[in-house]
Amino acid sequence: MKIIAHIETDFPEKFGIPRQSGIVEELQGKITFEPEYRNPEAVRGLDGFSYIWLLWQFDGAEKDRWSATVKPPRLGGNQRMGVFATRSPFRPNPIGLSSVRLEKITFTERGPVLYVRGADLRDGTPIYDIKPYLPYADCHTDASEGFAHEIRGNRLDVIFPRELLEEFPKEKRDAVIKVLRQDPRPSYHDDPERKYGMAFDGKDIHFRVEGQKLTVFEVVPYEEVRKKNDIIFDKQPM
Amino acid sequence: MKIIAHIETDFPEKFGIPRQSGIVEELQGKITFEPEYRNPEAVRGLDGFSYIWLLWQFDGAEKDRWSATVKPPRLGGNQRMGVFATRSPFRPNPIGLSSVRLEKITFTERGPVLYVRGADLRDGTPIYDIKPYLPYADCHTDASEGFAHEIRGNRLDVIFPRELLEEFPKEKRDAVIKVLRQDPRPSYHDDPERKYGMAFDGKDIHFRVEGQKLTVFEVVPYEEVRKKNDIIFDKQPM
Repeated sequence: MKIIAHIETDFPEKFGIPRQSGIVEELQGKITFEPEYRNPEAVRGLDGFSYIWLLWQFDGAEKDRWSATVKPPRLGGNQRMGVFATRSPFRPNPIGLSSVRLEKITFTERGPVLYVRGADLRDGTPIYDIKPYLPYADCHTDASEGFAHEIRGNRLDVIFPRELLEEFPKEKRDAVIKVLRQDPRPSYHDDPERKYGMAFDGKDIHFRVEGQKLTVFEVVPYEEVRKKNDIIFDKQPM
Repeated sequence: MKIIAHIETDFPEKFGIPRQSGIVEELQGKITFEPEYRNPEAVRGLDGFSYIWLLWQFDGAEKDRWSATVKPPRLGGNQRMGVFATRSPFRPNPIGLSSVRLEKITFTERGPVLYVRGADLRDGTPIYDIKPYLPYADCHTDASEGFAHEIRGNRLDVIFPRELLEEFPKEKRDAVIKVLRQDPRPSYHDDPERKYGMAFDGKDIHFRVEGQKLTVFEVVPYEEVRKKNDIIFDKQPM
């Protein structure tokens, strides 16, 4: 399997990444090809498609680990489902599948760059393949969703003090609020005293959650994050 | 990359396979897991989904071959598009992506067997991964289709004499007619004298095409097919 490209996103860590693509459509991503594939001809005609598929590599930690059943976070993390009935990364072949909105393509000295929206990928994720989204073959409006019910709705009320929110550029503020609304915590967590840290766009967002209310109390540069021992940085089970 | 399963379909050859999944929904497929993955637990909950994704291996012939541009058959085979703007098999990583309808799951001595519909895969194709189709993440009703316009419509009138059609079991007759309607010929062919052979369900269907009319003139056992020198067995460019 050859890595053809990498994606840049605002998530240097897994914690906070939406559980599927498209859940937070404001999220920005930028795909740059590896030298061997930096040929503008290879994306000729791609700009006619509004969505593309990304086949990508799950994190190193998830390689060579799989089990027949997993505990999907959306079932509260306490019920087991077959791995093939989930999009869990702990599967025989660590390949993720995500459809993202293709916003624009630019042509640079480093080859074509694809600007995408809505990706559920960590910063730096290796990409194996890019394919056009073909609505007549890929969009099934009659599909039943099994145990995976719609979760687009806002689940938490987010209190993000203005002066802290302004640490982020204007065009990223909607995205960061919507990510927090999705509730980045592992589903079994319910401790109003617990402090969480979510890395986003070079910053670290510290917050607590009480009931349905998520309150951001601090935004610090991402580099400092590891020094703060009282902040919990949970790895989110996907 | 581990092969987790294989699919059985009615197409021992590439010629005639619809160009995407779902185009001929009547087509039957049957997925059997490799010994290591024959665990009924691994598909627990999968029956709640009506569609599944298959990640599969393109044919050996297509491995280690890729070019920046390809000629999509639906553009008449004479216009080049970037490989990443197509679903062509001649890409850096030979992985196909298809959504198929999941009809039922049975549990046998050889593990779970998935019965699917609409697959665009050759008989015996190795499967790398099976994932549930999540409509909230995977179905984009607003997606534009680039140069890949809808081709569900019947393109040819098919004359299939009843005594020849009866060579196939009842439940496969709709499928075989719809496959022929899609026009299995390479797009640049237009020769009413030319004889074609399409292998399907252990038989070989011999036909000619004149204008919009496809006429089946013979159905023979698939084994005999190689002895007939006057029949053209085109490999369909995908």
